[in-house]
Amino acid sequence: MNLPKGFLASGVRSGVRKKRPDLALIVSERDASNAAAIFTKNRFSAAPVELSKAALRRSGGRVRAVVVNSGCANAITGPEGTRAAARVRQRAADLLRCPPSEIFLASTGVIGVVLPDAKIRAALPDAVRRLSPGGIDAASHAILTTDVGPKVASATFREGSRRGRVVGFAKGAGMIHPDMATMLAFVMTDAAATPAYLKAALREAADSTFNAISVDGDTSTNDTVLLMASGRLGNEPLSAPADGEQFRRAVYDVCRELAWRIVRDGEGAGRVMEITVRGAATERDAKLAANAIATSPLVKTALAGGDPNWGRILAAIGRSGARISTRRVALFAGPVRLVAEGAPWPYRERDAARVFARERVPIIADLGAGEASATVLASDLGHDYVSLNADYRS
Amino acid sequence: MNLPKGFLASGVRSGVRKKRPDLALIVSERDASNAAAIFTKNRFSAAPVELSKAALRRSGGRVRAVVVNSGCANAITGPEGTRAAARVRQRAADLLRCPPSEIFLASTGVIGVVLPDAKIRAALPDAVRRLSPGGIDAASHAILTTDVGPKVASATFREGSRRGRVVGFAKGAGMIHPDMATMLAFVMTDAAATPAYLKAALREAADSTFNAISVDGDTSTNDTVLLMASGRLGNEPLSAPADGEQFRRAVYDVCRELAWRIVRDGEGAGRVMEITVRGAATERDAKLAANAIATSPLVKTALAGGDPNWGRILAAIGRSGARISTRRVALFAGPVRLVAEGAPWPYRERDAARVFARERVPIIADLGAGEASATVLASDLGHDYVSLNADYRS
Repeated sequence: MNLPKGFLASGVRSGVRKKRPDLALIVSERDASNAAAIFTKNRFSAAPVELSKAALRRSGGRVRAVVVNSGCANAITGPEGTRAAARVRQRAADLLRCPPSEIFLASTGVIGVVLPDAKIRAALPDAVRRLSPGGIDAASHAILTTDVGPKVASATFREGSRRGRVVGFAKGAGMIHPDMATMLAFVMTDAAATPAYLKAALREAADSTFNAISVDGDTSTNDTVLLMASGRLGNEPLSAPADGEQFRRAVYDVCRELAWRIVRDGEGAGRVMEITVRGAATERDAKLAANAIATSPLVKTALAGGDPNWGRILAAIGRSGARISTRRVALFAGPVRLVAEGAPWPYRERDAARVFARERVPIIADLGAGEASATVLASDLGHDYVSLNADYRS
Repeated sequence: MNLPKGFLASGVRSGVRKKRPDLALIVSERDASNAAAIFTKNRFSAAPVELSKAALRRSGGRVRAVVVNSGCANAITGPEGTRAAARVRQRAADLLRCPPSEIFLASTGVIGVVLPDAKIRAALPDAVRRLSPGGIDAASHAILTTDVGPKVASATFREGSRRGRVVGFAKGAGMIHPDMATMLAFVMTDAAATPAYLKAALREAADSTFNAISVDGDTSTNDTVLLMASGRLGNEPLSAPADGEQFRRAVYDVCRELAWRIVRDGEGAGRVMEITVRGAATERDAKLAANAIATSPLVKTALAGGDPNWGRILAAIGRSGARISTRRVALFAGPVRLVAEGAPWPYRERDAARVFARERVPIIADLGAGEASATVLASDLGHDYVSLNADYRS
């Protein structure tokens, strides 16, 4: 796949990781692109997150290049970690002849280790040399950690008579949870749009995609989603909230596809629940209940075992803090009614088991307390998750 | 072990479970004992919980007998489940010639199945026949589900010239979490005390014991802790908050021992973290941070693997919502300093690994934001947890 017009990318090996590509570079071809980003809410945000936030502010939402490394998160590394990240930024700015505030940084990997920035600085010229429109393939590989494979998605949109593109790639496997799924995602478009417009479009899309997925309830120190617009489509820049409805839909589609792949590739995941909570008093209540189900180890292990153990699902809802009418509550697995009016429904175990054997298991809970709803995707918790996480560092 | 004076117990097989004892009976020998209880906060509280709450109110905190079954939680079973529980209560009241409001019920097991009360009613006469002071042994076995083994604890206290006893037994393995650890615990004493005094003593003890343990973050529909005082010690009834300091200490000791055993036996648990958060702005902040660590799947799998992966611990604190001074935060594994002033400390991996190889791993986090602290016990998450829970019902 090629990037939208105006973007080049590459992926190379810098030596931070022992054997795999670990350095991705994205460059806005002519000059800096307008951009907007969303970052982790974790209080221990990593050095690259802090530097990128500050840079976006200083540049007024302009990004010339993105430098991403895997193998080291450079999080909770104190002033030394910040200095290491700043040296990478300076080297990239020198090579691309732009101000350091137009360099956007992202890192993923082990926490608590200072970035070995000399390796990255030494590899950057090679990364610049290899830049190409098709470099998204190498870049999408270089940012992976425990991911099963690369995650790339694209969509098209019409803006007047022009046909534009949105292309994104992401990584993320562990530490995935709402309010910045722990992951990195980079989304590019050839559309012209103001930074403020991009910010609104990105927030709107992330709210029901990246912020509605859960692998293990943990959120990372490094989560970052970046949206960049090269403007090469030549359209009148999108700026008012009502502008570019098709464009916003394309951004949403790309984010949704990447979010789905992140959950599907959740560390050791075998199945994904699509949890819809409806009949909630408020949207907040719906999200509380959906997230309680999404993060319950008892529900997630039952899902891994293909066991339609609905008692665990209702127990999770019951402790979630959401308002519930215990006499009106209902529960479905796909088309199979399990609970009606707060009491067991005489379903056939075989029917429920068939739904729980699917790759994607739809769970619908009606709280009987109102009209609001929310949907969350969550992976299961099986032996592979434990195997991957019990000795990640070794 | 014998029960405190004034109590008899038994444990028999009713047939709710296929092969194991599943019915425990505790009887206050002469007439009803003063009592106090704490129940689950889960919105889907089970039929026996609802009936026992109402009975305690009606009897003014008096309990003649406790009927406990394993194998069926009788939770989320609608009016039919309530009627089944009421029939068990009526049968026990008839056999013991007391009002139904003096019968306390508790159930544990699968959710969503109506209690097969005929089996329990048929077995009750045998349970009454077998009552004895040493029956706590059989009773403590009959209430188990996925527990590794029975949990019994005792302590003594002085009240004036008299020496009294506190004896308790408990069950609980999965669905253990603060705010009513999912479990059942029955604590008996020969002391004389008013129901109000007992309630205060129980709340005080539970707050830092049963409500400070976590196996999987789920809370059950059936959690119950009951404290009963037969008064056979012959002391002036304890009634003022300052009364019986030694007695309250004994209740705390018994609760603490039972809570520890519940976590140690946590489903598939290999290790237990003793998480102490200090330097918090408020006690609520300290608990938020401690619970985030206690329930993080990433921390729990690292613990199972004996991996001192402190990045995951700080990441959990960072998303907990607790106020943190990121520049002053510190972290220790037992005596080994891992993080100081928000940056990695040059510890020897070997030293940290040795602490993480223990059965009980002390983790101390200093948030650098105040003077408050909290301690929580939590089990790890290994393959045995997944194996136990992926097919619990089969």
